[in-house]
Amino acid sequence: MKSKTDKLDALRHSASHIMAQAVLKLFPGTKFAIGPSIENGFYYDFEFTEKMSEEALSGIEHEMGRIIREEQEFICEEITKKEARGIFGGQPYKLELIDGIEGDKVSTYRNGDFIDLCKGPHVRNTSEVKHFKLLKLAGAYWRGDEKNKMLTRIYGTVFPSEKELEEYIRVLELAKERDHRKLGKEMDLFSIHEDIGPGLIYWHPRGAMIRKVIEDFWREEHIKNGYELLFTPHIAKIDLWNTSGHTGFYKDNMFSTMNIDEMEYQLKPMNCPFHIMIYKTGLKSYRDLPLRWCELGTVYRYEKSGVLHGLMRVRGFTQDDAHIFCREDQLQEEIIKTIEFVIFILKTFGFEEYEVYLSTRPEKCVGDLKMWEKAEEALKKALIKTGLVYEVDPGEGVFYGPKIDIKIKDALMRTWQCSTIQVDFNIPERFDMTYVDNDGREKRTIMIHRALLGSLERFFGVLLEHHGGRFPLWLAPVQVDIIPIKEEQAGYAVSIMNKLKENGIRARINDKDSKLGKKIWSSRQMNVPYMAIAGDKEVKEGRISVRKLTGGDLGAMEIDNFIDILKEEIFLKK
Amino acid sequence: MKSKTDKLDALRHSASHIMAQAVLKLFPGTKFAIGPSIENGFYYDFEFTEKMSEEALSGIEHEMGRIIREEQEFICEEITKKEARGIFGGQPYKLELIDGIEGDKVSTYRNGDFIDLCKGPHVRNTSEVKHFKLLKLAGAYWRGDEKNKMLTRIYGTVFPSEKELEEYIRVLELAKERDHRKLGKEMDLFSIHEDIGPGLIYWHPRGAMIRKVIEDFWREEHIKNGYELLFTPHIAKIDLWNTSGHTGFYKDNMFSTMNIDEMEYQLKPMNCPFHIMIYKTGLKSYRDLPLRWCELGTVYRYEKSGVLHGLMRVRGFTQDDAHIFCREDQLQEEIIKTIEFVIFILKTFGFEEYEVYLSTRPEKCVGDLKMWEKAEEALKKALIKTGLVYEVDPGEGVFYGPKIDIKIKDALMRTWQCSTIQVDFNIPERFDMTYVDNDGREKRTIMIHRALLGSLERFFGVLLEHHGGRFPLWLAPVQVDIIPIKEEQAGYAVSIMNKLKENGIRARINDKDSKLGKKIWSSRQMNVPYMAIAGDKEVKEGRISVRKLTGGDLGAMEIDNFIDILKEEIFLKK
Repeated sequence: MKSKTDKLDALRHSASHIMAQAVLKLFPGTKFAIGPSIENGFYYDFEFTEKMSEEALSGIEHEMGRIIREEQEFICEEITKKEARGIFGGQPYKLELIDGIEGDKVSTYRNGDFIDLCKGPHVRNTSEVKHFKLLKLAGAYWRGDEKNKMLTRIYGTVFPSEKELEEYIRVLELAKERDHRKLGKEMDLFSIHEDIGPGLIYWHPRGAMIRKVIEDFWREEHIKNGYELLFTPHIAKIDLWNTSGHTGFYKDNMFSTMNIDEMEYQLKPMNCPFHIMIYKTGLKSYRDLPLRWCELGTVYRYEKSGVLHGLMRVRGFTQDDAHIFCREDQLQEEIIKTIEFVIFILKTFGFEEYEVYLSTRPEKCVGDLKMWEKAEEALKKALIKTGLVYEVDPGEGVFYGPKIDIKIKDALMRTWQCSTIQVDFNIPERFDMTYVDNDGREKRTIMIHRALLGSLERFFGVLLEHHGGRFPLWLAPVQVDIIPIKEEQAGYAVSIMNKLKENGIRARINDKDSKLGKKIWSSRQMNVPYMAIAGDKEVKEGRISVRKLTGGDLGAMEIDNFIDILKEEIFLKK
Repeated sequence: MKSKTDKLDALRHSASHIMAQAVLKLFPGTKFAIGPSIENGFYYDFEFTEKMSEEALSGIEHEMGRIIREEQEFICEEITKKEARGIFGGQPYKLELIDGIEGDKVSTYRNGDFIDLCKGPHVRNTSEVKHFKLLKLAGAYWRGDEKNKMLTRIYGTVFPSEKELEEYIRVLELAKERDHRKLGKEMDLFSIHEDIGPGLIYWHPRGAMIRKVIEDFWREEHIKNGYELLFTPHIAKIDLWNTSGHTGFYKDNMFSTMNIDEMEYQLKPMNCPFHIMIYKTGLKSYRDLPLRWCELGTVYRYEKSGVLHGLMRVRGFTQDDAHIFCREDQLQEEIIKTIEFVIFILKTFGFEEYEVYLSTRPEKCVGDLKMWEKAEEALKKALIKTGLVYEVDPGEGVFYGPKIDIKIKDALMRTWQCSTIQVDFNIPERFDMTYVDNDGREKRTIMIHRALLGSLERFFGVLLEHHGGRFPLWLAPVQVDIIPIKEEQAGYAVSIMNKLKENGIRARINDKDSKLGKKIWSSRQMNVPYMAIAGDKEVKEGRISVRKLTGGDLGAMEIDNFIDILKEEIFLKK
């Protein structure tokens, strides 16, 4: 795995050099900053002397082609900082970079007449960069700091084969079509009102119905799996957040406080301290544990307005949160159960591919080293038992304990981190959480934080793009649109709708337009999985003509037949 | 109705005079303030020269008895303020009251050697006050202002008959036993954590399960009744609240603002403006209306910490809110549907008695007078059509429109206002809400605000006291406790639990104690509706012995039999 990724990185990084080389050739006087490889491609940041537009990209591609055909070799050279300052004399960003490098020497890569500050690695020859494409322009602050100058970033991608490049371009197009912000508007699922608060989601009736179905499923499965529900407030005095430590290490992500009766209150960025307050209302015995407490808790976290993005990055979201309070001897079994539960839930929503990471103790951490070892061991063993393939991210655990992260892969080749399972030794200390063991002594409770979907808002966005709006039947907000061909069938349509509703089917009559074609078009536009069309013939025969959004014409059938088909599909959750 | 109430008021007010008369006799030097009749009784506020305790009450009752036996007549006299100042020279509270009265004269009532500033009415003779009792002492600020002196309030009650008095005393005792704060702790339903925020409710697993059952029922019934769900954020920029007018007329009940990106944000005290934002995201046609949008929306309202009371008066609560957006010609039918829906929901929760009030246009109001008339007419006609007995509260409507309030009567003879149906002309103006009518012209949308349960927290409190913790089966958080007599029956108990759970029954094993008697006691303590007891005999016969919390021993039966009994009872929601 690693070496394949490294090779791709080198290819992409080399393409970014070639792009910079082409840009400097075509636009003399351009200042160039940095140009790394990234997931699925590369970019380079430039300060142009004139305004740049996307039209320029094909010219740059053309020049890159010329460089590639020249079969220039990439040569690594270590030079002194003094030499480097000479070479990059007219390049202020490079000079700033040189100043930031430790020691007397810097590493450079040269190909043809182009040289760049660079640690590599690169491919051997520009001719290896065959299957590339420049994608778009964007603004980007130098060093990501909005106080600095805004540079022009050019994004591109490159793949080892033409086929892979084409597939990627196809997925990019698809992603544009499936953009959840676009689908959200077309299907009337949600809205955001920048003027009265960016990053806050308003769920419209159809979106809210999907959320309800998700929540109902989530709650029922949690109850089946031995969880109990909680509801907790959205605010608490700042004291609670001092005890939890959030005011120390999480302040930047918290909203400003409110003043009530001359005391500071904080809108919650987390649910954990609230669950702990409930834990602490009564003495707990070893027989009470494990306690598995879950809540669909809406939290508010500050994000800079510039990074907000539709449903994917917001300021207010509902976590599908849970905390498991257990004894040390229960830890491993609880982790196994949680992993199995995560996978079951993700599969039900149509996600079959995962990337699993085990993040271990970071340098800065709290708690007893022995406990860390035990917890990492428990997580590792649990992963092995469940048979999941995973990678270790050394030192990437949270300061309070190790964790497992599970990323899902969507239909657009992207990964999304949704699920997380974290062992926590710190918060039980801070809140002095204990239980009375069978020897009558007080012991420290262990706490597992976990989320399956992460944020309902973000998960909904991922789901929307994954399915391109064509939700599986069990999730579709309207499952059947009943279309009377003419007004004469209106009464029949109502009787069909009532029959479907009695059977728990979410049915609606689509009669907003007079023309059949337009009615069918609007049902398709809203991605309604089934249409039940009723004309004269259908009324006479007591039937309906059924069309499936993803499966064409199913012909005329009796309503009971149709209900059986629907129920079967809903039961299978496909 | 009215005259009976007036007579009772006179009786109670007379008793308060007699109490003050007795107090002044027994505790010379006492200053007396005011003493009105209230619902179910009366009180009088005093400034004593010494510390008062409840032991003193029987002495006061004794002296009151003497006054009553003296058959003193109540005599009304109008006197000049000057005369009054002479009479009440040593009574600073009375002097302050005299200063506040308009005109030159004041009204007094005299009986025996006692005189009080008073507009009456009173009974004719102290001998009519036969069946009375003094209940308790409490602190109360003069004029309800905490900057003033704290006085001692003595509460009492009086009824026309001994039987009514006894019944009331019995209910008072019952209310003490059923106090939701006491039951909430005993049954582990919820907690409040004063130290990190008074007036905020933490729902524990059992309480949260009841809330889940209520919410599920609420959502399903709303969908059946043509409502659609929404989810909206808990905060918005202050601008939204300026438009809605809340910053003007509701400021005292709002929390302080938060500062985000140098803009003020407000925690929501209401859901309405959010629903309106969704309404306004797209053009609406006359065919789209009515829209019935509901949300279990958690709101935060400031209340002084002194008035907070368990679940009944809180700072954060979840409204079962809905807004109906309709045309003028749809108004009446929507109101009828809403009233019928309210009554259905309240009945399901076991409330069969209501007081219904129609509140009409207040002096200070907004909007076209014709619209007011139409709306009042629509509300009145709807009430008549649904056959509900109602009283008119003239001028008690909200400034933006008339309303219907429905109060429920609980098992403790108390009334609680939960449901409200309000017509609103003002907010649609403020937000410029329109629809395109069939003539192509824009018309103003009408909005109905309504809540059925009011606040989930408060309703839960009322429900808890109404049922005294013995929830009907469909609401009970744990429906069946399975009690294995000895450890040997543990496996059998698990199989019974699994069978019950498969059938959707909330079952739990109660094996925390080794003694049968203690297990039974703890199930009763938690008010679990059914116990399924399994000993050697039951295991051998493949049966369980069933005990009903409210119905005694049902004998041994097969599990399928028991499930049938449970399902029938749950279905009936009794």
